[in-house]
Amino acid sequence: MLKKYERLSSQVTVKGILKARAAISHYISRTNLIYYSDLSRILGCEAYVKHENHLPTGSFKIRGALNFFRTIPQEEVANGVLVSTRGNHGLAMAWAGQLFHTPCTVVVPENNNPEINRIIESFGAELIVHGRDFYDAQFYCDELVAAAGYYYVEQGNEPEMLNGIGTMGLEIFEDLPDVDVIICPIGGGAGCASVLKVAQAINPEVEIIGVQAEKAPAFYRSLQQGEWVVLDDADTIADGLAARSVYQLPYVIMRDHIRDVVLLTEEEILEGIRMALTSTHNLAEAAGAAPIVAAKKIAERLKGKKVVLVMTGGNLDRTHLEHALCYDSPLSSGDSK
Amino acid sequence: MLKKYERLSSQVTVKGILKARAAISHYISRTNLIYYSDLSRILGCEAYVKHENHLPTGSFKIRGALNFFRTIPQEEVANGVLVSTRGNHGLAMAWAGQLFHTPCTVVVPENNNPEINRIIESFGAELIVHGRDFYDAQFYCDELVAAAGYYYVEQGNEPEMLNGIGTMGLEIFEDLPDVDVIICPIGGGAGCASVLKVAQAINPEVEIIGVQAEKAPAFYRSLQQGEWVVLDDADTIADGLAARSVYQLPYVIMRDHIRDVVLLTEEEILEGIRMALTSTHNLAEAAGAAPIVAAKKIAERLKGKKVVLVMTGGNLDRTHLEHALCYDSPLSSGDSK
Repeated sequence: MLKKYERLSSQVTVKGILKARAAISHYISRTNLIYYSDLSRILGCEAYVKHENHLPTGSFKIRGALNFFRTIPQEEVANGVLVSTRGNHGLAMAWAGQLFHTPCTVVVPENNNPEINRIIESFGAELIVHGRDFYDAQFYCDELVAAAGYYYVEQGNEPEMLNGIGTMGLEIFEDLPDVDVIICPIGGGAGCASVLKVAQAINPEVEIIGVQAEKAPAFYRSLQQGEWVVLDDADTIADGLAARSVYQLPYVIMRDHIRDVVLLTEEEILEGIRMALTSTHNLAEAAGAAPIVAAKKIAERLKGKKVVLVMTGGNLDRTHLEHALCYDSPLSSGDSK
Repeated sequence: MLKKYERLSSQVTVKGILKARAAISHYISRTNLIYYSDLSRILGCEAYVKHENHLPTGSFKIRGALNFFRTIPQEEVANGVLVSTRGNHGLAMAWAGQLFHTPCTVVVPENNNPEINRIIESFGAELIVHGRDFYDAQFYCDELVAAAGYYYVEQGNEPEMLNGIGTMGLEIFEDLPDVDVIICPIGGGAGCASVLKVAQAINPEVEIIGVQAEKAPAFYRSLQQGEWVVLDDADTIADGLAARSVYQLPYVIMRDHIRDVVLLTEEEILEGIRMALTSTHNLAEAAGAAPIVAAKKIAERLKGKKVVLVMTGGNLDRTHLEHALCYDSPLSSGDSK
């Protein structure tokens, strides 16, 4: 069943990533890798944050979306593309679709955040609200594809999406060639797998550490069981980590190389958001802040090392932000403890 | 009394700004100018945000600080530099001072934010806490200069500081050559004056609109009275706008060309922070968010125009963030109204 993806994985290469970069750098700038000295003191390592939250649409997904539209043959998307999403993937595809003049239809579940929905629509995409959760929305896409002939974009399983996302990894190594550790959240797995591909080519000694939610530990379980795992649910407040499985393509790329996944409780995830606010003055979404609190959790192991924390995105809505600030102590202030 | 500054103002030039850029681009990247389509819908114009909050140290001040250290003769700062600050200027000078191996002493008032203090110290600066407010701290600096021979950096009155900051203006015009309006907060005035210098050289038709707090309207009053005004107090929650006067150098640059200053109430300033969060998913400090809410206030005049909102910085501490979120309706969520 994974054979197809093993074949596809050979299309995710540094050559492909460099080609992606040559093209997408016309549309988006490099993101900053910023050294935070106060955060470094707190964590006991040299802490750098890769600010993917600074990109248009607020996440690293835009890198993949741009490279997807650049490489997909025009005739395949003649009827438009279809994506199911709870946020960042849809934002990125709608934004890039508009740029490449390809109609984009985005299916979101009923409970989806209205802020995100409004922004997706503002990029000119057609928004369809359907189903109780992301997986209902995803199943509904099969019907739509059959009915209207859309190209359904299964984000994590498109090699050119991963090549686009890999440009983030390139930038990390260019800015910090002697990085020791990269900590990256794992939702669908595309981000982490792409960074891994770059690390394998440039310096396989670099440790890539994944972060998942205790409530959505799909890849963590896969590592334990030695097989691709689909969970029954993935009910974490961190949208970007709320995946019942990683995609198969990132799975086959990561399975023999990522040995380490830090699991976070819901409380720790909220603490990450607060740490991002107070120690970097950035609004990070829950998944984007997860590497910071994961680094705190394994601080002993990181001591003195050069550690890159990938802030994958910043699309935190107001409800979640208020929840993060008020969760442990509604009236406290000034500290992230 | 202003003669000296009229002379100095001739040192703030596009040539100087280009030289600054050639040098400081080794240390910091360009910042993004991002078009926000949902915000554009809300404001009724084409709304672009210049993300100075994405820079190291979280504000545009780093551009000026780097160019200051690059150009100041070594012998003048042999005993180190001294700055008084409530935040961004001190952060920038400490960060750049470390890079240029020049000792930096930073004087902050007693009530200063501990988050900011800690970060300033983490950049290797010596922190001195003195006085009830910024002006006490500033007066104390005179004593220190007399005693220890520091070079006291009066940020807004250093031409090379303004040349550094002007690189922000260059980037705006490069990314959006047909910009119609630039809205920029005015605290000490260095940011707005630098952008004005670029606009005068490239396209004097571009309208530069300043933003101040109703509680700290120094430049607004100057325009009315036709002279440089120092207020008795400047008691706004927006640190970046809390100046009792603009510096003299920006004053002489701006006085005949900026005809328009939007004044904001404290409530409007808080609304700006909320609008930045929900419509751009960025943490902006109060001054950095001010152009967004100013644009809402004068929406009628901006209709259909290409408008750049300068998000000057992102250093909002947790106390102020909680205040902004909970001010009008502690339990509401999901909307910035």
